[in-house]
Amino acid sequence: MARLIALATDFGSQGIYTGQMHAVLLASNPDIAVVDLVNDLPAFQPQLGAYLLASMVPFLPQDALYVCVVDPGVGSDRAALVLKADGRWLVGPDNGILAVVARRAGASRWWRITWKPAKLSRSFHGRDLFAPVAAMLARGDPVPGEPIAEEQVIGINWPDDLAKIVYVDHFGNLITGFRSQTVSERQIVRIGGRSIPFARTFSDVPPGSAFWYSNSNGLVEIAVNQGRADQVFNLRPGDELEIPAR
Amino acid sequence: MARLIALATDFGSQGIYTGQMHAVLLASNPDIAVVDLVNDLPAFQPQLGAYLLASMVPFLPQDALYVCVVDPGVGSDRAALVLKADGRWLVGPDNGILAVVARRAGASRWWRITWKPAKLSRSFHGRDLFAPVAAMLARGDPVPGEPIAEEQVIGINWPDDLAKIVYVDHFGNLITGFRSQTVSERQIVRIGGRSIPFARTFSDVPPGSAFWYSNSNGLVEIAVNQGRADQVFNLRPGDELEIPAR
Amino acid sequence: MARLIALATDFGSQGIYTGQMHAVLLASNPDIAVVDLVNDLPAFQPQLGAYLLASMVPFLPQDALYVCVVDPGVGSDRAALVLKADGRWLVGPDNGILAVVARRAGASRWWRITWKPAKLSRSFHGRDLFAPVAAMLARGDPVPGEPIAEEQVIGINWPDDLAKIVYVDHFGNLITGFRSQTVSERQIVRIGGRSIPFARTFSDVPPGSAFWYSNSNGLVEIAVNQGRADQVFNLRPGDELEIPAR
Repeated sequence: MARLIALATDFGSQGIYTGQMHAVLLASNPDIAVVDLVNDLPAFQPQLGAYLLASMVPFLPQDALYVCVVDPGVGSDRAALVLKADGRWLVGPDNGILAVVARRAGASRWWRITWKPAKLSRSFHGRDLFAPVAAMLARGDPVPGEPIAEEQVIGINWPDDLAKIVYVDHFGNLITGFRSQTVSERQIVRIGGRSIPFARTFSDVPPGSAFWYSNSNGLVEIAVNQGRADQVFNLRPGDELEIPAR
Repeated sequence: MARLIALATDFGSQGIYTGQMHAVLLASNPDIAVVDLVNDLPAFQPQLGAYLLASMVPFLPQDALYVCVVDPGVGSDRAALVLKADGRWLVGPDNGILAVVARRAGASRWWRITWKPAKLSRSFHGRDLFAPVAAMLARGDPVPGEPIAEEQVIGINWPDDLAKIVYVDHFGNLITGFRSQTVSERQIVRIGGRSIPFARTFSDVPPGSAFWYSNSNGLVEIAVNQGRADQVFNLRPGDELEIPAR
Repeated sequence: MARLIALATDFGSQGIYTGQMHAVLLASNPDIAVVDLVNDLPAFQPQLGAYLLASMVPFLPQDALYVCVVDPGVGSDRAALVLKADGRWLVGPDNGILAVVARRAGASRWWRITWKPAKLSRSFHGRDLFAPVAAMLARGDPVPGEPIAEEQVIGINWPDDLAKIVYVDHFGNLITGFRSQTVSERQIVRIGGRSIPFARTFSDVPPGSAFWYSNSNGLVEIAVNQGRADQVFNLRPGDELEIPAR
């Protein structure tokens, strides 16, 4: 049973969707806490969210349960999945959003959700399907689905690290899909025709200087001290980068 | 007694007001959960929020309690109300924000709040008046007010459905005040000089195409697949539309 | 022991940081509630947040615990502090963010945090240092640090009131660092070459008119009825103002 349910979605920190998720989750499980891990994942691009999500999971409690919904295929026949990865439960659509967490786990098992709610809207499976399934799992109910082989899961063959901007944070910093443990501090990051050197942290460079560093979730991140890297470089989620060997 | 308190306000998902609401509600009732149902209702236009709110209530737990504050008249002598509608409690100013929920309820009762807090700011009755009253109701205390007749309530004679954009969601979709159950799939929506046909859902039209569909709260919603309808059509909350008979 | 933990940060209402704070706090203390008091404090300018924070504390429960992080010096050797002020616990960096609360308290005690987490990122001490220390204090553990004298704390000699915009709210209102109890209703506020008169509240002036009033946290605030003062006057946090004697 899980006490903490983390949302990782593109439903918006503002607006009308995230609150309905909370309400459904809390209605059935009075003793859980629902945390907005991230609700502004890039829309329509589950691959970007998948690499960001995988970087955040190690920093959350071991028994947290994740509801992960970036779902451009909602209303089509895309499958809905449950993943158990190193003891953690995750639910989400079969479009890769869960795949990178599984790739980095020591042990993972997958199910296709077969349960159907009494009322299923065409556009908000987060509320109508994934949240109720998460509530079942949080209560310790059996998985409402059938096991499937990992090879069938979309995204399971994606690369170990993704050479793209996966997220632009609140400060305008550009978070990449590259784990910094795979990169040397002597390597530079090439993006948008520029070459960005390493620095240890913000206070090591003058205001206005660009650098890459290992961010608080272990990813290569491009920042400008006391500035917004997204605006300085005019870059956004999905833009590609290179980290040449040295 | 209510376990879940839902906020429906224009106080902002960001900022300093919503958190003060949570703190006041939680201070007095340790066992409740406060959910941000929507905190970016259109400011100054309680009618728009009223139709959106009424569409969301059926999707929340039956025993949820609602604090609804879009309150351009705060500091004037507008009344403050409590509504019991089909067993649900709601509190808010007398400007129509609660009226549509009442119109759609099988049974509703109204009270004018007569209780006064020791400290009442001129601009934040959400924190100083409505949240404390909600906390009393959540605890099961008697209503701190006097019954009033429904005919006296502002907005109680508004139309069944509202032919306006009532909200622009996080994805740029245009939510109308029209319940889709009142509209046939063969009808078109006319807005800003354009005619928008029905589609079942996003994945049924090509990227970039506009359509209307029945949204997850049962309202007619205008969307552009993988685009922002608000920007494509340059429309905003309060803009009018037509749904001609066919 | 505290039941309610309030966040006052520049981590963003949107994004990936605030949720990680919630998760760390909830993981260790199942019975607490975490409230987002304000997560969009002006970045890089802890002085502005310090005056806003001090105005909000009196409106929260007496036993709330505060995690206050605007931290441009993260990763440098700036100290990390615990403050006990009139019975309330606060944690945050030594850059003045806590100083104004202390100045206005009847009694205050300070500690420098000496505890080190097993894993300390260079850029997110909110999650790695301040949240765990807050969790210890919420549980009633001893302060993990050593007492320091108040004279050593940055910001402790700042003025009683700050003649600057400290925050722009969700409605575009300009909140100043001046307590309205120190200003007479006959005084005008001068800012950006304009003179702004007092009004009691929004509904006392015509739509489009600018005025200053005593806001719901007791600060002088500049507003435009049904308009956005930040846009009308092109002003932002940090901009200076004058309130001449009369």
